[in-house]
Amino acid sequence: MKRIGILTSGGDAPGMNAAIRAVTKTAIHHGLEVMGIRYGFAGLVAGDFVPLTAEDVDHTINQGGTFLYSARYPEFAQENVQKKGAEQLRKHGIDAVIVIGGDGSYHGALALTRLGINSVGLPGTIDNDIPYTEYTIGYDSACRTAMDAIDKIRDTASSHHRVFIVNVMGRECGDIAMRVGVASGADAIVVPERDYDIKKIAKTLKQGFADGKDHGLVVLAEGVMSADDFRKELLKYGDFDARANVLGHMQRGGSPTVADRVNATKMGNYAVNLLLDGKGGLAVGMENGKLNTHDILDLFDGKHEGDYSLLDVNEEMTKD
Amino acid sequence: MKRIGILTSGGDAPGMNAAIRAVTKTAIHHGLEVMGIRYGFAGLVAGDFVPLTAEDVDHTINQGGTFLYSARYPEFAQENVQKKGAEQLRKHGIDAVIVIGGDGSYHGALALTRLGINSVGLPGTIDNDIPYTEYTIGYDSACRTAMDAIDKIRDTASSHHRVFIVNVMGRECGDIAMRVGVASGADAIVVPERDYDIKKIAKTLKQGFADGKDHGLVVLAEGVMSADDFRKELLKYGDFDARANVLGHMQRGGSPTVADRVNATKMGNYAVNLLLDGKGGLAVGMENGKLNTHDILDLFDGKHEGDYSLLDVNEEMTKD
Amino acid sequence: MKRIGILTSGGDAPGMNAAIRAVTKTAIHHGLEVMGIRYGFAGLVAGDFVPLTAEDVDHTINQGGTFLYSARYPEFAQENVQKKGAEQLRKHGIDAVIVIGGDGSYHGALALTRLGINSVGLPGTIDNDIPYTEYTIGYDSACRTAMDAIDKIRDTASSHHRVFIVNVMGRECGDIAMRVGVASGADAIVVPERDYDIKKIAKTLKQGFADGKDHGLVVLAEGVMSADDFRKELLKYGDFDARANVLGHMQRGGSPTVADRVNATKMGNYAVNLLLDGKGGLAVGMENGKLNTHDILDLFDGKHEGDYSLLDVNEEMTKD
Amino acid sequence: MKRIGILTSGGDAPGMNAAIRAVTKTAIHHGLEVMGIRYGFAGLVAGDFVPLTAEDVDHTINQGGTFLYSARYPEFAQENVQKKGAEQLRKHGIDAVIVIGGDGSYHGALALTRLGINSVGLPGTIDNDIPYTEYTIGYDSACRTAMDAIDKIRDTASSHHRVFIVNVMGRECGDIAMRVGVASGADAIVVPERDYDIKKIAKTLKQGFADGKDHGLVVLAEGVMSADDFRKELLKYGDFDARANVLGHMQRGGSPTVADRVNATKMGNYAVNLLLDGKGGLAVGMENGKLNTHDILDLFDGKHEGDYSLLDVNEEMTKD
Repeated sequence: MKRIGILTSGGDAPGMNAAIRAVTKTAIHHGLEVMGIRYGFAGLVAGDFVPLTAEDVDHTINQGGTFLYSARYPEFAQENVQKKGAEQLRKHGIDAVIVIGGDGSYHGALALTRLGINSVGLPGTIDNDIPYTEYTIGYDSACRTAMDAIDKIRDTASSHHRVFIVNVMGRECGDIAMRVGVASGADAIVVPERDYDIKKIAKTLKQGFADGKDHGLVVLAEGVMSADDFRKELLKYGDFDARANVLGHMQRGGSPTVADRVNATKMGNYAVNLLLDGKGGLAVGMENGKLNTHDILDLFDGKHEGDYSLLDVNEEMTKD
Repeated sequence: MKRIGILTSGGDAPGMNAAIRAVTKTAIHHGLEVMGIRYGFAGLVAGDFVPLTAEDVDHTINQGGTFLYSARYPEFAQENVQKKGAEQLRKHGIDAVIVIGGDGSYHGALALTRLGINSVGLPGTIDNDIPYTEYTIGYDSACRTAMDAIDKIRDTASSHHRVFIVNVMGRECGDIAMRVGVASGADAIVVPERDYDIKKIAKTLKQGFADGKDHGLVVLAEGVMSADDFRKELLKYGDFDARANVLGHMQRGGSPTVADRVNATKMGNYAVNLLLDGKGGLAVGMENGKLNTHDILDLFDGKHEGDYSLLDVNEEMTKD
Repeated sequence: MKRIGILTSGGDAPGMNAAIRAVTKTAIHHGLEVMGIRYGFAGLVAGDFVPLTAEDVDHTINQGGTFLYSARYPEFAQENVQKKGAEQLRKHGIDAVIVIGGDGSYHGALALTRLGINSVGLPGTIDNDIPYTEYTIGYDSACRTAMDAIDKIRDTASSHHRVFIVNVMGRECGDIAMRVGVASGADAIVVPERDYDIKKIAKTLKQGFADGKDHGLVVLAEGVMSADDFRKELLKYGDFDARANVLGHMQRGGSPTVADRVNATKMGNYAVNLLLDGKGGLAVGMENGKLNTHDILDLFDGKHEGDYSLLDVNEEMTKD
Repeated sequence: MKRIGILTSGGDAPGMNAAIRAVTKTAIHHGLEVMGIRYGFAGLVAGDFVPLTAEDVDHTINQGGTFLYSARYPEFAQENVQKKGAEQLRKHGIDAVIVIGGDGSYHGALALTRLGINSVGLPGTIDNDIPYTEYTIGYDSACRTAMDAIDKIRDTASSHHRVFIVNVMGRECGDIAMRVGVASGADAIVVPERDYDIKKIAKTLKQGFADGKDHGLVVLAEGVMSADDFRKELLKYGDFDARANVLGHMQRGGSPTVADRVNATKMGNYAVNLLLDGKGGLAVGMENGKLNTHDILDLFDGKHEGDYSLLDVNEEMTKD
């Protein structure tokens, strides 16, 4: 193995650049060359490759987004397109590829491996929704951004004795909502994976005001419903002043946190070592705080398990 | 004068607590007693007063919101309610009042002055929309929060070569949009006070991508229209990928910036000195970087003038 | 069990307030009363107790420091003083105590347990130096603060092509240095637990400049030596411009991170449940990402094991 | 005029990149070409020039430091070296130059103007120590960074009832100390321009603790003395627990604040317009909140006047 490629795919996430940096510097340490593949699998097929030196990645560890860019490219599900991609890699002397991204990216990595180009996937998505890993690159930063915003919203909620319903990201996965909810001291956390009892939530909020609390907070995964719809529903059972807020796209960006930089670095470093060992078709993850690998195939059947104890802990801190 | 009151009114703004602190500590320095009036004019009429010591305000300078709380209270427009308020103040030995808030607050301060309780108004609102002042307490912090969010949004915009339309606060006043737009490097800034040419904006964005720019940004005061409506309109003239984002209530909260803390402190200190000089019915502001006062009456006819040169500067940095 | 006490001891750490909040709210959920014990073991002996309601802790989750205060109190090593403390607790009807703090705090918790007051210790220190736990409350926030400062220092280092030697906290434990070093992209990380080769570090830095890197960075645990002494030593082997910087006390403060708030909440909640189960003399920790307990006695013989793989990963990203 | 050059000189400051961006984009708007001159006057003489396009500066507005780098170059005081610089500019068709930096930079700008290359200086230094301007690029960001650090230090000071003496930057100019001191709620602010009474400061701090304040804070410009020396002196008059802290180089870096980005943009835009009007030998500044110009010659005799009213306001908030 002389030259490896690296690409980012799917939605961007803080820490992707830290992972690219770790891959690049580790590979160079081991005498390999590194090619950055721009615009994900679209760029792979188009041959949009740029050589990366250690100096090219010197100022990337603290930058959000992905400097290699990302792009949607559903065409890569087609076998003939995959073959074209593998051809491009061979033409440029690229022996192996590291893919950073979400669910979709793993399909691409597996396809390349089957076509003889060993490929390893790193979990890069703020949603933390990938099977067999308790952590994805970007998750901690997204939680940080959401929590910081809610800290600000709490100021205005308290000044006016209001309830805020805040939509955080997470379509089918409540991990951001759960962690941000606990970190923000939410009165209630609502996620797609669990039922919720809106009457009980209203009761908790009313009880809070009755006991002298000066605000209320519901953290709501956007996959459940919009904050505004929730607010309307909630106001059927309580007569407090309630506002809806959607945090939106800023959750995807920003300088990565310590955890995202450190974990992305460890994962990037680890992925290069897997390739050096001749491995491919693997997904890197983290279980029980340690790096692990799984066959990518396993991921397609697997289901991400969030830390639902957070919901129990949060409920065990309400009165009743 | 032995005892002064202080209240916050209207929407909360970062720096209100710093102003309360400065009023309290300055008054105590001069041998006065200070009563905090909770929940704005509503609490004034209800007699919801709490004595404030220097130690009570020791940890407030860095806190967003207002620890005296605020509340809507349109009833204070009625003369008999105003009289009830003045009575409450006299009953509690409060000789003068400092009111921190937006437009509406000044009416209350004037009414109290006319009823014999000298009152001074401080401009406290993130919107920067008060006549005869170039600065209101909270404006700088709101701009900071919006800019920080847009810095994060730019990461994801660039990673995916997208245009973002971002709604910032400002109903009839574009000051937040103008300053945040310039600070964020926006391709276009849209405010209520000026016409805009959506075709030209689309052309600028298209030109940017054509020349190698990896993202586009429009900062839009929410008083003009929703980001989503703007987006739909804009896409009639350009085929780029565009997303709408509303920053929302977090712009009201958060630890105040240096400027907001320093200016709020100067204004609070100044207001006490005005009362010590036997003055009332005055609004404190800042013109040409210096503290000033105007008769509150003047404000009702006045019109806030923003720094529209920011729009010209921003246009003078586009190509064409 | 009807009433529990809670105190913070040793150096303050971000997240202590989140733990106090979790203890308070969980205890109230289970029908217990909670007494805050101010100034650590000194206040325990002096009987400086304040009742805590759920509302008292409503605005604490995002505050650094400890609102119960902390204090040095070596006198608590004496048996007669411990007995006086146990007496005070009994007098106030306090059946069990939760202690948040570092090494020293555990001795106190064990002493109380032996005197019949079940006590549980939570690891609260930024240093992450406690045996049988991979995480202590405040560690993540301290790393965040140090990393944010170094991100700023890197700006000026790069502008002037300088090397910075930055002292981070950590007397006998290099955990902050290791994690911050990796997260900051340090050229070298120097910790008390491992030898270092200053000639090799100088060579790496020189090589960086020769290859076009515009700055150099060494993250140095303060327990090894002062940044200034290291700088003098380093300059014997390299002719670059090098500056020393000590980050200092700010590493102890600030609003806690997501991880510190969430973990402190889980630990506080867990500690109450241990007491409800009639347990005492236990230290709560985290191993393999999961909450655990150990007999406090074990901790006295134990040794904290840091994640030294971080040093290996960082070295595997240098050239050579 | 067809082509202008831009360079940064002296210590780097947040907002320099925003100024470079504004110069570049404004110049291109007016049909000019822009050459970035790297490493300040050293690079000017060496001919280290890089063309700048609008796209080159797209991601710079939020970056601290200066991407054109800066360097000490005392040799530019010599006339023959200045002539060599002017020659280089002519050789590369550069008709005019904008210099961003501190005091020293203005000498260079004047020298170039006298040699026939119109040059304009922008005030770029965190110290705010330039005559005829109330604001320098980077000053607000440095204050922000210092204030944020002190907010954290206050957490730990309060938890342990300590006094902190904090050294902020400022050798002969107390502007950072004054503004940060007020914004941090300091008990005392010590600057080079004014005498201080250490006994009175000790008395204020003691009084604070006696009245129930849980911490003390002195903000000290580093030009007066080291925090540690001040601490030793202070402890002669008070028996509180006091610690010294030096904030250090991080004050120079970090993403610029709203004010620094906006002002740097306005100044950069303005400077290009001055050159378009055929002017040179001018220093841009801000007085009474408005952009102004002065002959550079005037600056050499002038003296910066800080807002010393901040000291009076701060004293008027102490008891006595």
